[in-house]
Amino acid sequence: MERADLILTDISYILTMDENLTEYRDADIAIKDKKIIAIGEGIKNRYYGKTIVCKGKIAIPGLINTHTHAAMTLLRGYGSDNPLKVWLEEYIWPVEGKFVSYDFVKDGTKIAVYEMLRNGITTFVDMYFYENAVADVINEAGIRGVLSTGILDFPTPGAKTPDEGIEKTVSFIKEYSGEYVYPAIGPHAPYTCSPETLKKCMDVAEKYDILFHIHISETEFEVATVKEKYGKTPVEHLDSIGVLNDRVLAAHMVHPTEIEIEILSKRGVKVSHCPESNLKLASGVAPVPEMLKAGVTVSIGTDGTASNDDLDIIGEISTAAKLHKGISKDPTVLNAKEALLMATREGAKAVRMEDRIGSIETGKLADIVLIDATQPHLNPLFDPYTQIVHSSRGSDVDTVIVGGEIKVLNKEVLPLCRDEIMEIAERWKKRITES
Amino acid sequence: MERADLILTDISYILTMDENLTEYRDADIAIKDKKIIAIGEGIKNRYYGKTIVCKGKIAIPGLINTHTHAAMTLLRGYGSDNPLKVWLEEYIWPVEGKFVSYDFVKDGTKIAVYEMLRNGITTFVDMYFYENAVADVINEAGIRGVLSTGILDFPTPGAKTPDEGIEKTVSFIKEYSGEYVYPAIGPHAPYTCSPETLKKCMDVAEKYDILFHIHISETEFEVATVKEKYGKTPVEHLDSIGVLNDRVLAAHMVHPTEIEIEILSKRGVKVSHCPESNLKLASGVAPVPEMLKAGVTVSIGTDGTASNDDLDIIGEISTAAKLHKGISKDPTVLNAKEALLMATREGAKAVRMEDRIGSIETGKLADIVLIDATQPHLNPLFDPYTQIVHSSRGSDVDTVIVGGEIKVLNKEVLPLCRDEIMEIAERWKKRITES
Repeated sequence: MERADLILTDISYILTMDENLTEYRDADIAIKDKKIIAIGEGIKNRYYGKTIVCKGKIAIPGLINTHTHAAMTLLRGYGSDNPLKVWLEEYIWPVEGKFVSYDFVKDGTKIAVYEMLRNGITTFVDMYFYENAVADVINEAGIRGVLSTGILDFPTPGAKTPDEGIEKTVSFIKEYSGEYVYPAIGPHAPYTCSPETLKKCMDVAEKYDILFHIHISETEFEVATVKEKYGKTPVEHLDSIGVLNDRVLAAHMVHPTEIEIEILSKRGVKVSHCPESNLKLASGVAPVPEMLKAGVTVSIGTDGTASNDDLDIIGEISTAAKLHKGISKDPTVLNAKEALLMATREGAKAVRMEDRIGSIETGKLADIVLIDATQPHLNPLFDPYTQIVHSSRGSDVDTVIVGGEIKVLNKEVLPLCRDEIMEIAERWKKRITES
Repeated sequence: MERADLILTDISYILTMDENLTEYRDADIAIKDKKIIAIGEGIKNRYYGKTIVCKGKIAIPGLINTHTHAAMTLLRGYGSDNPLKVWLEEYIWPVEGKFVSYDFVKDGTKIAVYEMLRNGITTFVDMYFYENAVADVINEAGIRGVLSTGILDFPTPGAKTPDEGIEKTVSFIKEYSGEYVYPAIGPHAPYTCSPETLKKCMDVAEKYDILFHIHISETEFEVATVKEKYGKTPVEHLDSIGVLNDRVLAAHMVHPTEIEIEILSKRGVKVSHCPESNLKLASGVAPVPEMLKAGVTVSIGTDGTASNDDLDIIGEISTAAKLHKGISKDPTVLNAKEALLMATREGAKAVRMEDRIGSIETGKLADIVLIDATQPHLNPLFDPYTQIVHSSRGSDVDTVIVGGEIKVLNKEVLPLCRDEIMEIAERWKKRITES
């Protein structure tokens, strides 16, 4: 018998989401030094150590949320149902202008991290301000974050100029890179960043080998603005200035033309599809089947909770799968395996971490989610992929493991205190509504 | 002090969903003889009796699911992602042909009723076969069902001819009408029932003052078939044979023309919108904003779990609200109050029971749901309607009361045994997969 740090035994289904979509029934996983060291039947007889019996549970890789603004939990549902202009100008921007600070971001991120862990998210991609506050929370809680400060050509809560934003990003890279924090650079969008800013950002991304996280083609307004300014569609514009390559993670991508989809594929640009936010803000429906057909890596994101209004990535793939079947009038589109891949292996590719996360494989980091399949609403269980995508929700996540550490057990989030979260939410609600 | 049977005290928000959308904060509800007898602040000081303290909870009317095939839980997710023809001909129909029986329906309905109660549904509209089995389950569990046997022009598991189906419905009305069972007549659809069958069904509906529950305009195939057969669109065809009036509940209504919407409005036909099923089966997106604008009563249904694959009506209004904002490119469409109305007061109108259920009002039946708002993913809570529609899920339902009786408490379903449900699901899974 060899020693392991953690052994998950008698797991009813293991959906590895590896290249062969290998599955195991009634099998075990052994974890040591933060990594998966063995998977299969009878593994429990070869290792000793701390053990969790997982009968009736489905193991999947830790879920990856490739686009959010975590701290915006503090604006959850705020000003909902208003026209976009009113929502931004009378609700979101005034509150952000008044309150966004280290404390705002730290508190909002605590709520987000609690919710994401509860829903089985083990890695998320963030773009906001005061990312040092985000880093402090995630280092404490032990969830992985690909963190980018939003860089714009006008003053932001974090920086007076885009150059200051870029400098802060460089300092952040040097100070915070670590086990949980993966810095990225976050030029906001092609209509809010000049070609010069975008090129500088790409230089930093190349120099430090990090992700270039940007919003592209979210709204028709954006497309029109870019066309008017540069005479090109957003993707063509970005390609023409040389900032499209395989380290670009493009959030939204609702309105690409056929030519733009070809460029995305050719350049290896990854997409973060945010269907619920795109619907709720009335931005439209991204052509996901077309992008997949062209070979584009499409991952999934919740966007911020001000426009969703939750951080449930299982709900998000459920919406995506149904939506694209309905819109394309083809029920075979985005099948359950493809939908779950968006939140696992394709998510890992989107953040360029597919060598470490995104599937349950020996040698990869032990980021694992166990779903409680012993509930009536998940039965009879003919196909575990279908059941996860179309019948389950984040609330069915029972156990969450990040790098071999147990973060959620029996549906209880361990690293953060629910009472503290509720107190934080109550305090900010008061401040915001009284402002 | 007067005696009450049940007093709900200190409810953080009461969303009555009455005609004025009256709201209460930190108030109480008193219940006696199955009905609500008092609502408001300080009510708890006027009554004594069994008390539940509801601090941190949001009270809403019991939710109404206006279209499902409850027993199809036994086919949850079965054959998912296949083309419609393959799904029906190689998966659904063979299993139904082989297994549908009193026992199949009873067992499938038990799973469905467990899940619906857990998700806050207190009334549902069913169309399937062996509705006596459905009735037996709901009388035992204490949930309201508007139950219709599917009547078709070809042999069904319940009847060799449509006339036999109609006769069985009449017997069912006489034998089963009661506190929980509200019989309806269920001609399947305009393309599967002849005008003669439809007229006979309407005669029964009029004679016994019951609902006429039918699928209309679910798929383009149906519309084309009806056009070819009768030279008219489905709604125009039904109107021309005189079977459209205010006792018609039309499920789906995905493809109505402008003229058809006008007819629906003029005749007082109610619609059961089933967005997730319509998306998953690639049927399309119903023109809900247009129907609402024309004054049509639009309620919400999950459809059966073979095509959804859950019975979560909160998830369904969330999908509906987001979907119609996105499709119409207008974020003000289907606001949170309108979305919640679809599952409450409009649902009650759809089943012609608005005098008894659908809102929290003195004199109405005490069908009440309490949502646990003390969870991080529902906070900060700026607007309770928005939070329910866009941030909560069925799993946030804490307490469910039907006619003054507690059916769910602390998220536990009381009238049905979870272990029995799991055993039923396992047994049928085995039989179906081995067949």
